[in-house]
Amino acid sequence: MTSEVRQKAALAQDAAAIMNRLTTEQKNTALLHMADALLSGQAAIIEANALDLQRGREQGTSPSLLDRLALNGDRVAAIAEGLRQIVGLPDPVGELLEHFDRPNGLKVEKVRVPIGVIGMIYEARPNVTVDAAGLCLKTGNSVVLRGGSAAIESNRKIVEVLKAALGETAMPADAIQLIEDSDRASVNEMLKLNGLLDVVIPRGGASLIRNVVENATVPVIETGAGICHTFVDASADFDMASAIAFNAKVQRPSVCNSMETLLVHEAFAEKHLVRLADRFIQAGIELRGCERTTSLLASAKPATDEDYGTEYNDYIMNIRVVSDLDAALDHISRFGTKHSECIVTGNAQNADRFIHEVDAAAVYHNASTRFTDGFEFGFGAEIGISTQKLHARGPMGLPALTSTKYRVFGNGQIRG
Amino acid sequence: MTSEVRQKAALAQDAAAIMNRLTTEQKNTALLHMADALLSGQAAIIEANALDLQRGREQGTSPSLLDRLALNGDRVAAIAEGLRQIVGLPDPVGELLEHFDRPNGLKVEKVRVPIGVIGMIYEARPNVTVDAAGLCLKTGNSVVLRGGSAAIESNRKIVEVLKAALGETAMPADAIQLIEDSDRASVNEMLKLNGLLDVVIPRGGASLIRNVVENATVPVIETGAGICHTFVDASADFDMASAIAFNAKVQRPSVCNSMETLLVHEAFAEKHLVRLADRFIQAGIELRGCERTTSLLASAKPATDEDYGTEYNDYIMNIRVVSDLDAALDHISRFGTKHSECIVTGNAQNADRFIHEVDAAAVYHNASTRFTDGFEFGFGAEIGISTQKLHARGPMGLPALTSTKYRVFGNGQIRG
Repeated sequence: MTSEVRQKAALAQDAAAIMNRLTTEQKNTALLHMADALLSGQAAIIEANALDLQRGREQGTSPSLLDRLALNGDRVAAIAEGLRQIVGLPDPVGELLEHFDRPNGLKVEKVRVPIGVIGMIYEARPNVTVDAAGLCLKTGNSVVLRGGSAAIESNRKIVEVLKAALGETAMPADAIQLIEDSDRASVNEMLKLNGLLDVVIPRGGASLIRNVVENATVPVIETGAGICHTFVDASADFDMASAIAFNAKVQRPSVCNSMETLLVHEAFAEKHLVRLADRFIQAGIELRGCERTTSLLASAKPATDEDYGTEYNDYIMNIRVVSDLDAALDHISRFGTKHSECIVTGNAQNADRFIHEVDAAAVYHNASTRFTDGFEFGFGAEIGISTQKLHARGPMGLPALTSTKYRVFGNGQIRG
Repeated sequence: MTSEVRQKAALAQDAAAIMNRLTTEQKNTALLHMADALLSGQAAIIEANALDLQRGREQGTSPSLLDRLALNGDRVAAIAEGLRQIVGLPDPVGELLEHFDRPNGLKVEKVRVPIGVIGMIYEARPNVTVDAAGLCLKTGNSVVLRGGSAAIESNRKIVEVLKAALGETAMPADAIQLIEDSDRASVNEMLKLNGLLDVVIPRGGASLIRNVVENATVPVIETGAGICHTFVDASADFDMASAIAFNAKVQRPSVCNSMETLLVHEAFAEKHLVRLADRFIQAGIELRGCERTTSLLASAKPATDEDYGTEYNDYIMNIRVVSDLDAALDHISRFGTKHSECIVTGNAQNADRFIHEVDAAAVYHNASTRFTDGFEFGFGAEIGISTQKLHARGPMGLPALTSTKYRVFGNGQIRG
């Protein structure tokens, strides 16, 4: 018997051939129908969501997780508005990336095309269901969604509403598939579905991403893990360093581009560490530090290598005093996850070395790592932040959901 | 105990940080030293190669495989010349791909950077050892080579010579690593080396590629498998169709961009199939065909679905008569490997549909599929032909061996 996963992926693949033929206008019309349908289906969606919330409460789910799961009228409206924003973005499909004529008269064009079928594996936020579907469909792809089981009732109703909305459009309803099987085995089956899924994109916590990366034979776009550093060099301006480091840690500690470890040049630390740290202490941040840090800051606990290698996503941070730029680079090379790294310095040569030598998706001179984000970069959308080096790196907008194809035009050319 | 694979990959990773800092001139100087060293080390290389050839003969290796394995003065010179050609190519590293200013004053640049450490898994052609190393090093990457055990003596000597040549240059000898362990387990270990290898590229036959794709958790760039079609439409010019189809099949049947199945519109087939096929029969090609083909061509055997799904790489081909363009598209969608596909037609609308709707790395109108090649496309090099949709698709030149990085320049920006 064909499994749910295989069967739905095959439907998505058949639909992908139709998706590939849609015009931008046809896709946008479909997305607008979806947005309207979410609003008119709001009551049913919130009712389904209530079942998830009730089950969650019975199972003792934490208040913060329940909050992420919860939908209300405002949240559904915001989700629908997200789809409308995707409509407003330029369609990358069909873009001519390169073209050249060969001496034998062949005309070669490299154009953007949809990838085909995209598998999304994510956790308990039902807004991701709509957001991921919208981005994949806008770029002419089919999508196979596998959300967390905690949101299954919400997701089922949302996908029902979205598919019904497509009935009146040129877009095939089969382009959206939801895997309802809540067993972990259905995730693992998706990860091996070479030939049916063209790529799998995980969105969620470290253990979800690790499971996908370690088990997938389908190509993966790895997203997420961020152990990000801010290095305050000897020549840094105090106010700028303080503002950037504080923003990187405190503005939203739960996200991947927030700072976990502050590296401070010893010359700066001697003069300013106590004052720099005081702002974090006032804000209730738990500090862990190297020996020199703990000797300067009574409230800081000793930091271990495990601390330096942990993405806290919380009001905790490490501080390490380093002797120079090279020591900072070594620390980042050892403990960083190649996500976002920052140097605050007035020394142009050090800035240049840092920008050039740090191996990360985004490297900053004198700005907060919190800017690593598709919206902050002006892409108007974000399917995730890639921390791998192939296909896409850093914030991924719509072009990251496309592939390319060579079109070759001849008049009888053969190879000699 | 650390395995050979892990140990050498770690050395390659350390070297990658140095590779990232080299200028184009430093890399070119190193490649020229390598080319010179191959010429001056020619005798030792040919001597080592003789050991491989002798072992091969003792083990009953086929003459064609022995020929691929064999090195002589001319071949070593050609390999060295290949390195010199790589020197002449533009260095993609450092290329500014995008740059934009944000309203908050941040300046964002997207630049090409080396990938890091590239694993190459290939078979018994020692020229691949040099070619792959040259391309990876030119793009600032370290390379971990794992060639076929049949060429181990040749590869060991070649890598020894190349590493010695780097002693006099700025390039670290550790940037080239050869896995000498001939056990299949060493390949499988490479495939799971997340965190040490940034990508694995397989080059070889279908079973080697399948093993890599099905077992790798490291990102893979899939290359190779090509079941390519030529569709001769009703309106095709006979001479053009004959020339293109014959070239696609016969010019070099052993390679991935050669044709395996000829699809012929029934209106063309009725008038011209006998004459079209005659040229293939004269050339000694074995023909397998659909019912209508075998009814028109006495010498053709019946073709099965398995035949349509086989990459012969040989003097065998399938012929299928189809009722129209849609039937041709369906056949290609079912049996193609998304490599290279061609339509020969005088009908612009059909050409347009074919070019747009066929899902393949390269689609041709009125030209042979044999042109899918980095040199024929003018890239000056080719690390392989990607048949996957992420990162790179089609012939891969030097840019396919690079990643990107965002550089962000601020003056104190923080996120609000």
